[in-house]
Amino acid sequence: MTPEQTIIASAIHSWKQQVERADKVFSGLTDHQLQTEVAPGRNRLVYLWGHLSAVHDAMLPLLGLGDRLHPELAAAFLTTPDKAADGLPPAAELQRHWGDVNGRLLAAFGNFTVSDWVGKHTAVSDEDFAANPLRNRLSVLLSRTSHLSYHIGQTALAPK
Amino acid sequence: MTPEQTIIASAIHSWKQQVERADKVFSGLTDHQLQTEVAPGRNRLVYLWGHLSAVHDAMLPLLGLGDRLHPELAAAFLTTPDKAADGLPPAAELQRHWGDVNGRLLAAFGNFTVSDWVGKHTAVSDEDFAANPLRNRLSVLLSRTSHLSYHIGQTALAPK
Repeated sequence: MTPEQTIIASAIHSWKQQVERADKVFSGLTDHQLQTEVAPGRNRLVYLWGHLSAVHDAMLPLLGLGDRLHPELAAAFLTTPDKAADGLPPAAELQRHWGDVNGRLLAAFGNFTVSDWVGKHTAVSDEDFAANPLRNRLSVLLSRTSHLSYHIGQTALAPK
Repeated sequence: MTPEQTIIASAIHSWKQQVERADKVFSGLTDHQLQTEVAPGRNRLVYLWGHLSAVHDAMLPLLGLGDRLHPELAAAFLTTPDKAADGLPPAAELQRHWGDVNGRLLAAFGNFTVSDWVGKHTAVSDEDFAANPLRNRLSVLLSRTSHLSYHIGQTALAPK
């Protein structure tokens, strides 16, 4: 591997580790267990799981990988706070969404070249990108890895 | 910037963002406020702050940057769980440690070359590193960035 490839592989590995960690947290929980709040009055596990799926789904257009796979997740888990809407999807459906979205992302990451990674993401203009080359696809990956860890840390506080 | 340099700059930027986020959480809290548990029966803010300082301090030898600046933090915040020992340092001292350690790291990051970043960290043998080149300094940075986000997520749950 060239140094560039090693660096990119390290970043993808770091993302993958956090996704696997979240898998361990959420997969296998029952619908009942998913109702647990991470702390009194705070988000339920079901909400965080759907929220993470929705945020990861939105990475697809942001990275230029096409449309979201499950755009309906946004209304339930991005624009609406937890407990403000009825009828979140059941565990089996959330599991499928989570798997679909992360599978699609990881497959695409394996095909990105170094120049894809340092290329601009779709939410920044050519001008703004010229002024700030850190607004690249890799920065999206790093920021979403941090976002994922942030919420995994919260799930660790949920009463068992 | 070359693609390599852009990639490295993106990773350092991501680390810096999380450090600044933690600054906003902890700096300016009183000793009294730092006693708040992030959730019932869980770690206090004071412990998380010291824990993060201790983990970041330990990055210095791990990255080949010399000895830890505050080795005494390890006993209080790494090997001992919260509330098992009396007399954690006061806020003013924790603030100093946090600033020292992160300042030292950030200065060093600015001097690392791409080949420093893809070089092995000090806790892996030459043989193991040859078998797995992802055990490099950059992976330490990425994993500590995730660790930091993990705990920042927890601080967001603390009652205000």
